[in-house]
Amino acid sequence: MLNHLLTTNELKVEEIYQILADAKRFAEGMEWRPEQATFAANLFFEASTRTKSSFEVAERKLGLEVIPFEVATSSVQKGETLYDTVKTLEAIGVHAVVIRHGQDRYFDELVGKVDIPIINGGDGCGHHPTQSLLDLMTIYQEFGRFAGLKIAIVGDIRHSRVARSNADVLTRLGAEVCFSGPREWYDASFNLAQYQPIDEVIEDSDVVMLLRVQHERHSLKGNFSASDYHQHYGLTIEREKRMKSGSIIMHPAPVNRNVEIADSLVECSRSRIFKQMQNGVYVRMAVIKRSLESLKGGFHNETAYQKRLLRSV
Amino acid sequence: MLNHLLTTNELKVEEIYQILADAKRFAEGMEWRPEQATFAANLFFEASTRTKSSFEVAERKLGLEVIPFEVATSSVQKGETLYDTVKTLEAIGVHAVVIRHGQDRYFDELVGKVDIPIINGGDGCGHHPTQSLLDLMTIYQEFGRFAGLKIAIVGDIRHSRVARSNADVLTRLGAEVCFSGPREWYDASFNLAQYQPIDEVIEDSDVVMLLRVQHERHSLKGNFSASDYHQHYGLTIEREKRMKSGSIIMHPAPVNRNVEIADSLVECSRSRIFKQMQNGVYVRMAVIKRSLESLKGGFHNETAYQKRLLRSV
Amino acid sequence: MLNHLLTTNELKVEEIYQILADAKRFAEGMEWRPEQATFAANLFFEASTRTKSSFEVAERKLGLEVIPFEVATSSVQKGETLYDTVKTLEAIGVHAVVIRHGQDRYFDELVGKVDIPIINGGDGCGHHPTQSLLDLMTIYQEFGRFAGLKIAIVGDIRHSRVARSNADVLTRLGAEVCFSGPREWYDASFNLAQYQPIDEVIEDSDVVMLLRVQHERHSLKGNFSASDYHQHYGLTIEREKRMKSGSIIMHPAPVNRNVEIADSLVECSRSRIFKQMQNGVYVRMAVIKRSLESLKGGFHNETAYQKRLLRSV
Repeated sequence: MLNHLLTTNELKVEEIYQILADAKRFAEGMEWRPEQATFAANLFFEASTRTKSSFEVAERKLGLEVIPFEVATSSVQKGETLYDTVKTLEAIGVHAVVIRHGQDRYFDELVGKVDIPIINGGDGCGHHPTQSLLDLMTIYQEFGRFAGLKIAIVGDIRHSRVARSNADVLTRLGAEVCFSGPREWYDASFNLAQYQPIDEVIEDSDVVMLLRVQHERHSLKGNFSASDYHQHYGLTIEREKRMKSGSIIMHPAPVNRNVEIADSLVECSRSRIFKQMQNGVYVRMAVIKRSLESLKGGFHNETAYQKRLLRSV
Repeated sequence: MLNHLLTTNELKVEEIYQILADAKRFAEGMEWRPEQATFAANLFFEASTRTKSSFEVAERKLGLEVIPFEVATSSVQKGETLYDTVKTLEAIGVHAVVIRHGQDRYFDELVGKVDIPIINGGDGCGHHPTQSLLDLMTIYQEFGRFAGLKIAIVGDIRHSRVARSNADVLTRLGAEVCFSGPREWYDASFNLAQYQPIDEVIEDSDVVMLLRVQHERHSLKGNFSASDYHQHYGLTIEREKRMKSGSIIMHPAPVNRNVEIADSLVECSRSRIFKQMQNGVYVRMAVIKRSLESLKGGFHNETAYQKRLLRSV
Repeated sequence: MLNHLLTTNELKVEEIYQILADAKRFAEGMEWRPEQATFAANLFFEASTRTKSSFEVAERKLGLEVIPFEVATSSVQKGETLYDTVKTLEAIGVHAVVIRHGQDRYFDELVGKVDIPIINGGDGCGHHPTQSLLDLMTIYQEFGRFAGLKIAIVGDIRHSRVARSNADVLTRLGAEVCFSGPREWYDASFNLAQYQPIDEVIEDSDVVMLLRVQHERHSLKGNFSASDYHQHYGLTIEREKRMKSGSIIMHPAPVNRNVEIADSLVECSRSRIFKQMQNGVYVRMAVIKRSLESLKGGFHNETAYQKRLLRSV
């Protein structure tokens, strides 16, 4: 069976630990490469530096050939569906695809119909599993456990790809999760975690996980200016001083400096923001390895699909 | 002499069979790589997923370094001519270029003036030789011959890059070609092939080669809706049932589902649509090999042109 | 200390000769590759064929993995700063970045704050050091010295990235530099070089270095048409005949044919225009080598920064 990576919700706890263990090995210098020439393609239907480059570095470190795919110059411009695009890449010999797409659960129209693994690089406001996994890796590196930790997720929880799925997976792993930020962005549907005001939550949390205010998705102006946001809900220099000893700051980036977090704290000693990015490469190497290994058997230069096509030659 | 690939018309029959033979060897696992580090560039002045990715995979499978070239961010934006662009790539060490360009026979201003092979990835409404060759490969795989086959080319023959050149080459190889689709798109200039209505032609054709309705190039609306087109000229579920035993369906893709062909037929047992894409990679490997081999002699990291420049060092 | 390449002004004369010597060795076939898998990224915030492709070829010839970065699809679209973009690339494992950016001295906000070398691929109207270096290489190849040469820099000296910095470096190396072109584009601030009308200057110059009229940056129309420009300030067929014996023509390209230079002179025997492009690859290989070597010590797959992040694992 193919190991797609679609959401963290459908990963079992053991699978999560396996991925984290492999990511750690990659961070420590493990080399792993598929036995045959292997092709990957990254289909990014939305802007991204971090995620796309991170996958690209991960793929190259595994020795994969990465086929460039630019939406702007592709047949998607001629109205081609996502299914036909992926099927095309499969037919020409691509072994795995990473997809970021603005539509929630875009992958539902692919799974079971394509014969290569799909790795979700972010869908709509829904899921971003490699971001969740790199967050987990960063926390585990720091504390060596999840049980008993208190994790505050602060900010734009309504539009965040990761807020709900991180809350879900952290709870499953034994941590206590708490949401903070503007009260009006929290509602009863967030049943996994309680709401606490920022000034309370920073004092006893082990991890303060800030979320990006999505200027692209909704306007701050209706409610408050960037500087208002920073004053009321952001991690100010003053608030950082009241953080629990040994606690850390995380942020998926790109950071809006002086909005979610004071400019000078982005690279302070508590901050793991750039470390998260570094971990992202190792987590993605682990995820890609897991997907490629699930091709095993059928994986000699041709996918199962390729072989089926070849059979009729 | 340089082996460009410009049009199928100028390929001799023996050359065609040589390319198909090499493509078959590549499909069967043949490895061939140039002896030196070799650079290619793909210049696509029009949108394309299939052709561009297919060339990219073919190039990588041959071990080439592929230099990214995006028209949108190139000096073409500053008004640079195609000739100067190619000459630049040649000067910096590119050994072969693949070009898709909207202008008919764009390559006439290059051939004889540049010292690296040009591989035509499609020009205007004119030619698309690697598409023709992959069609030939697919037909030959199926029937082991061209002589005596009846091939129906159905649809937008007026705007198709491949209709006329496929008709020409298939006729030269001994097949009988017949055009179908809207009567008004056929005119006396198509002297290579007769017109037959779709309901007749599907009954005795060995290959039903559907063409894409080019929404980009002309509007259907003047004449008929997409659903009208499907009813009158498309391969419906009903028509497929009347196809000759052993006959196959082809389409260069991207497919307009339920226009040229019923959605459920795209991957039916007669369909070779995704197989055509798979064959495209092998045909392109064969074509690139043929071009690079024509650099032989002068082909030690530097092209003839590079060497001439170097001589004055 | 990191060897950035920011401007030619800050390169010592010995450093320039070292780069030219390495470039010559690369032109003669020297192989040099970093010992570990090495990643580079090219951040081009402005259109470019020549410079970007040239860096890309140079990087591949040195065995680097090049991470694609397209501004249009990056988080720069979400307002990310240049600093955060470079820091991100550093965190994910990129060892060197090449940047072209429209802002003068964009690199001032990076140097001292990032731990990977920055190679300036052109900033604002300011500097374009690899262009200067390839010009120097081309002149040195031809004459074996700089001292005593007379170099005319002709044309759009006001908007040119290279006019002032070339004048500076050539003077330091012992050549005499003279500006020509429209008198009104020359002003007292060009204290390094005298002004001379084109018809005088071509007669005794060893090098006639034409500059591109930047249609993008200012309109010719206020002053003169393209054909007026050619007649009054361009290298016409007639003027070329009066050039000194053994003298050469240079142009950074892309050329506006029949504006700065008559169409038929672009590839005449005096022209080194395409040779400059060829030299550009070798000069860039030398510059990248110099930058990567400055990572030595800390350069085992991880940069100093990467290692610092890893230490806390």
